[in-house]
Amino acid sequence: NRLRDHGVEIGVLQPGTFNAITDVPGVQVGHTTHNESENIRTGVTAILPHSGNIFQEKVPAAIYVGNGFGKLAGYTQVKELGNLETPIVLTNTLNVSTAMNAVIGYTLEQKGNENVRSVNAVVGETNDGYLNDIRGRHVIEADVIQAISSATSGTVPEGNVGAGTGTICFGFKGGIGTSSRVLPKKSGGYTVGVLVQSNFGGVLQVAGVEVGKKLGHYSESFKYSPDGSCMMVVLTDAPLDSRNLERLAKRAMLGLSRTGGIASNGSGDYVIAVSTAEECRIPYESENPIQTVPTLRNEAMTPLFLATIEATEEAILNSLFAGETTVGRDGHKIEALPKEKVLEMLKEAGKMD
Amino acid sequence: NRLRDHGVEIGVLQPGTFNAITDVPGVQVGHTTHNESENIRTGVTAILPHSGNIFQEKVPAAIYVGNGFGKLAGYTQVKELGNLETPIVLTNTLNVSTAMNAVIGYTLEQKGNENVRSVNAVVGETNDGYLNDIRGRHVIEADVIQAISSATSGTVPEGNVGAGTGTICFGFKGGIGTSSRVLPKKSGGYTVGVLVQSNFGGVLQVAGVEVGKKLGHYSESFKYSPDGSCMMVVLTDAPLDSRNLERLAKRAMLGLSRTGGIASNGSGDYVIAVSTAEECRIPYESENPIQTVPTLRNEAMTPLFLATIEATEEAILNSLFAGETTVGRDGHKIEALPKEKVLEMLKEAGKMD
Amino acid sequence: NRLRDHGVEIGVLQPGTFNAITDVPGVQVGHTTHNESENIRTGVTAILPHSGNIFQEKVPAAIYVGNGFGKLAGYTQVKELGNLETPIVLTNTLNVSTAMNAVIGYTLEQKGNENVRSVNAVVGETNDGYLNDIRGRHVIEADVIQAISSATSGTVPEGNVGAGTGTICFGFKGGIGTSSRVLPKKSGGYTVGVLVQSNFGGVLQVAGVEVGKKLGHYSESFKYSPDGSCMMVVLTDAPLDSRNLERLAKRAMLGLSRTGGIASNGSGDYVIAVSTAEECRIPYESENPIQTVPTLRNEAMTPLFLATIEATEEAILNSLFAGETTVGRDGHKIEALPKEKVLEMLKEAGKMD
Amino acid sequence: NRLRDHGVEIGVLQPGTFNAITDVPGVQVGHTTHNESENIRTGVTAILPHSGNIFQEKVPAAIYVGNGFGKLAGYTQVKELGNLETPIVLTNTLNVSTAMNAVIGYTLEQKGNENVRSVNAVVGETNDGYLNDIRGRHVIEADVIQAISSATSGTVPEGNVGAGTGTICFGFKGGIGTSSRVLPKKSGGYTVGVLVQSNFGGVLQVAGVEVGKKLGHYSESFKYSPDGSCMMVVLTDAPLDSRNLERLAKRAMLGLSRTGGIASNGSGDYVIAVSTAEECRIPYESENPIQTVPTLRNEAMTPLFLATIEATEEAILNSLFAGETTVGRDGHKIEALPKEKVLEMLKEAGKMD
Repeated sequence: NRLRDHGVEIGVLQPGTFNAITDVPGVQVGHTTHNESENIRTGVTAILPHSGNIFQEKVPAAIYVGNGFGKLAGYTQVKELGNLETPIVLTNTLNVSTAMNAVIGYTLEQKGNENVRSVNAVVGETNDGYLNDIRGRHVIEADVIQAISSATSGTVPEGNVGAGTGTICFGFKGGIGTSSRVLPKKSGGYTVGVLVQSNFGGVLQVAGVEVGKKLGHYSESFKYSPDGSCMMVVLTDAPLDSRNLERLAKRAMLGLSRTGGIASNGSGDYVIAVSTAEECRIPYESENPIQTVPTLRNEAMTPLFLATIEATEEAILNSLFAGETTVGRDGHKIEALPKEKVLEMLKEAGKMD
Repeated sequence: NRLRDHGVEIGVLQPGTFNAITDVPGVQVGHTTHNESENIRTGVTAILPHSGNIFQEKVPAAIYVGNGFGKLAGYTQVKELGNLETPIVLTNTLNVSTAMNAVIGYTLEQKGNENVRSVNAVVGETNDGYLNDIRGRHVIEADVIQAISSATSGTVPEGNVGAGTGTICFGFKGGIGTSSRVLPKKSGGYTVGVLVQSNFGGVLQVAGVEVGKKLGHYSESFKYSPDGSCMMVVLTDAPLDSRNLERLAKRAMLGLSRTGGIASNGSGDYVIAVSTAEECRIPYESENPIQTVPTLRNEAMTPLFLATIEATEEAILNSLFAGETTVGRDGHKIEALPKEKVLEMLKEAGKMD
Repeated sequence: NRLRDHGVEIGVLQPGTFNAITDVPGVQVGHTTHNESENIRTGVTAILPHSGNIFQEKVPAAIYVGNGFGKLAGYTQVKELGNLETPIVLTNTLNVSTAMNAVIGYTLEQKGNENVRSVNAVVGETNDGYLNDIRGRHVIEADVIQAISSATSGTVPEGNVGAGTGTICFGFKGGIGTSSRVLPKKSGGYTVGVLVQSNFGGVLQVAGVEVGKKLGHYSESFKYSPDGSCMMVVLTDAPLDSRNLERLAKRAMLGLSRTGGIASNGSGDYVIAVSTAEECRIPYESENPIQTVPTLRNEAMTPLFLATIEATEEAILNSLFAGETTVGRDGHKIEALPKEKVLEMLKEAGKMD
Repeated sequence: NRLRDHGVEIGVLQPGTFNAITDVPGVQVGHTTHNESENIRTGVTAILPHSGNIFQEKVPAAIYVGNGFGKLAGYTQVKELGNLETPIVLTNTLNVSTAMNAVIGYTLEQKGNENVRSVNAVVGETNDGYLNDIRGRHVIEADVIQAISSATSGTVPEGNVGAGTGTICFGFKGGIGTSSRVLPKKSGGYTVGVLVQSNFGGVLQVAGVEVGKKLGHYSESFKYSPDGSCMMVVLTDAPLDSRNLERLAKRAMLGLSRTGGIASNGSGDYVIAVSTAEECRIPYESENPIQTVPTLRNEAMTPLFLATIEATEEAILNSLFAGETTVGRDGHKIEALPKEKVLEMLKEAGKMD
């Protein structure tokens, strides 16, 4: 029931086995979903770039800020040092600090980290306050630990799960979405996987078809909404340094744009990009002040840029196709994307048979 | 013969009278075209935010770097001081310095600037070296002066003119393109005008229709090409400070993305954004250390973001619709976009009647 | 017993009444100090730019990252929107998230904020893990609330208080320090106040005298220390926009340098700059999309730059002069600066009578 | 006759053989000096990171903008790609474009570059318009070529030479200055060399002694001066990537601060940092999309930071000690630093015997 199951292809590159961020070897994703009582529609999603001790074996990383009306934690240290030392956690806006606390605790407790006294938790968020009683701050530390420890490879649940439980995209129910691309051998054969927490607005386009315009479903879409945002996580097994990871991250915004996203004033659009290549890991401590690492030359980046754009576009669309109609806080109701109608439009536009 | 003449609308907002950057009051554009002998296909395009002495009456400005494989001059001072003090000039990569010399000379000579000893010339470029003997550096200072002094309001020539004479876009003949949007009264009624010098690659989409993919015209499009680039100039009469102009500039990249652009490694993608609002002008010298200026609040930016995205997308498409088949250096030939075929595809996709 | 009490003047500008950040009208500072049992040496310092509801009456702000090995919260939103909407809170590295939770709670609870669903808490930190059981994360939310609610104008306690309880500077006991400068009337008469949480290394210089070198107290000072850091808060009543506030913030690093600081790899050096000018406040909500605000022209910034440099240098030195010998975690002991010896050196160098 | 010849040591690290940027193996410096007629006091300084074809064997590089009121060319491409592909050239503000033209021509003409169609010339400047008829733009392309081709290793002329011919520092005659530091073996044994073109203001400190204040020679020093600026070039044989080079570059501003510099509004303070390590060279073209390169780990940076700060401070002071009283445009006269008086002050302060 994903977009691609209907024969609609986004872009010119091919996805991996699961068409998910978990196509990148070693990557795991876990969710904790709070879908309780009438008012709680929130949760946590954790993405692990590898299954080892990330603090001891850091990964090259970069974060790009598409629009900074957001509360993502950990930005400046990633920028300065070029690496990530914790799992990536996504949740709601007002629970970022709770999630940080959990990630810090998780790291301090890990075997081998007994003397660690400094942890840069990377936690992203979007604001689910329309469907969720966000002021109640219902995510607790245990939720985060559970998302991390239940993380698995393989198929990734999408839509109303984890950090996407209460999010809204183009006025429809959004949530978690994921996709991947595998480069041809001649371009290196690398995999790029993207996972999004979609919660933003604009004028929806599906595979280039102006769904938002046709449905007239955009009148409010470009007015002030501090609650918008899109978190994008881009992982790849290509060996990249932080400079080229930042360039890669930047391209995710181009993918967002192709769904009709406009990065409105009230949007917190952040892209976290990480290389999972084993040969690029950065040991926390080392006898040797010099590290010799293979990295891709600048001109080898272009196919990875394209892969990121395509996978981001499709991940967002997947979040919309998986999102389910939700009633939440104070009876607020957000409809799922009218998939039948959309598929009809796609058919008319020649995007599917 | 522009895209919109065929009934194809990009986005949901309406363009201004000329559907051009000159819809922003006071803005003027001039071109000098070098289409000589077999090998020279280059030129100069000048954009004047107002017709006064720009050095004496500076304008709030920002430059956003989409991808920095380019030689644009003037970036760091605009970033630091938040203003522009010369006309904006576009040309080819290896003539940026010639154009700077011309702009400096122009400014030093202007009445009232007799004691000026520091000029920050803003000159952008793309690389027309496939069609043009770029190593010959055929643009001379007089060309730049001519482009500036011949600048006019009203209709803007597009395609193979000025700085677009020898540029290539998605493997077809690109060049100069322009478009505009006028916000509804309730959103402020401001005009946003965009002018592009298109010279980049990717997988072409026209109004969401995958033209590049259907034509199979992209196989080479995502390999290394240091010659790519897109210069985008965004002018608006909305009263904006440099911080919000930088945010506006950032959105032009989202418009580029919607045409299928991917900001390849070898691309120099720059956006120069300027507010032409008279009440925001910054006098070179002033008795008063304090300047009191009206500017838009952050949350009023969203409609301007949408306008920038739409106008950039359409400006790039206009450059392709205006581009004409060109033979240049060493007999290199670049075809114009096959407009008939494209319009047929648009029709099939329901984008036009 | 502050440096200036001994007749030593830093720079050429004069301080305000208290030679403290509280010389900026309306500014208040509060501390919560945890000096308990053998292992707890930590605390919280809160700085309030004004005594109203900061979320409803935001202040123009910027944050400059001198070296980003730190966990400061709130950076990207301040950068994007150019404003601050909470008190500034300083604490230890591993309690940033606790402090964020407290600041979020504080803001949600404030009268008038009943419908607020998004809060950008700005929390800075340095690592007091040598003297303090930082892994125990002993700061609780109530400590933060207390620091905020007990904030007062007037004299500011320095040294082993609040967030400076367990910090180390140039190998001596550091902590909280503050200083101010008042510009001459012809330069605008504005006040610049600085408060620091000093916890960094280098080769100490006091008023240009090479104390560290003379004492041989630097052998370890330039090796790896992830625990270093300096938080600097710069407030001024000059009417500034966020662009010029960022430029101002940058100058605090020049002040840090004059004490011998080198911004080592392991240092998290952040400067938070805020304009407290009433006419620059940014209402959370407004009927009018346009705000008309007086701001200083670029060329009026230079005296403010000098004031920031001088006040930062003196604030750091004040933190050292106020720091007291401390025994903490696992019996770790850090001596106070040997003030007698230092004053002797200053005398010999002709810096005091 | 340099500062160190008088027994005054800056910092705690030792300089190399020449106490010059040329202590970094392979580095060469060349000057062209225009000291003609009554009004021409300008020139060109070229710094070559290695003596090969720099375009074909690029070097890792970064540029840090201390204050961006300047016209340095080449910033955005260095930032994006992390490398330098031309000699570094310094000249006066209004001749940057002439120098770019020369550097482009030089590169196009080099053997092996016959097919090059894109060159990112890095040219810095300061404004010598008080002593020099800068509006006359007296530097010609041949001057630049001569500076490049006459570049040599060994002793570097300082003061009124090359790009420093007409510059002013703290109200005294500044110019070119250079210094170096060699790290102890245990810190890697690397050399850091700095060359400055000093042309800025503040309140002069020499080895921590408040010369400017004592001489009362600063009254004008913090008012508006668009002509100020300091160009700093930092070369090292340590194997560094562009991220850590940017961090290194940032520290040069801390060195500038220790001379009393304040980075005034009108200052264009830029630092260009390059690693000359042979194993880090980046070939223009390569069969292999992956490059395996040794680079220093983050925590090995601290001693290099200290070396950069010390060498920058001493390079600036050297420029002042070498500067000679100059009469130039319209009879404008700038005195040399009163070295006798300054040395007397240093003696009194115990800085020398």
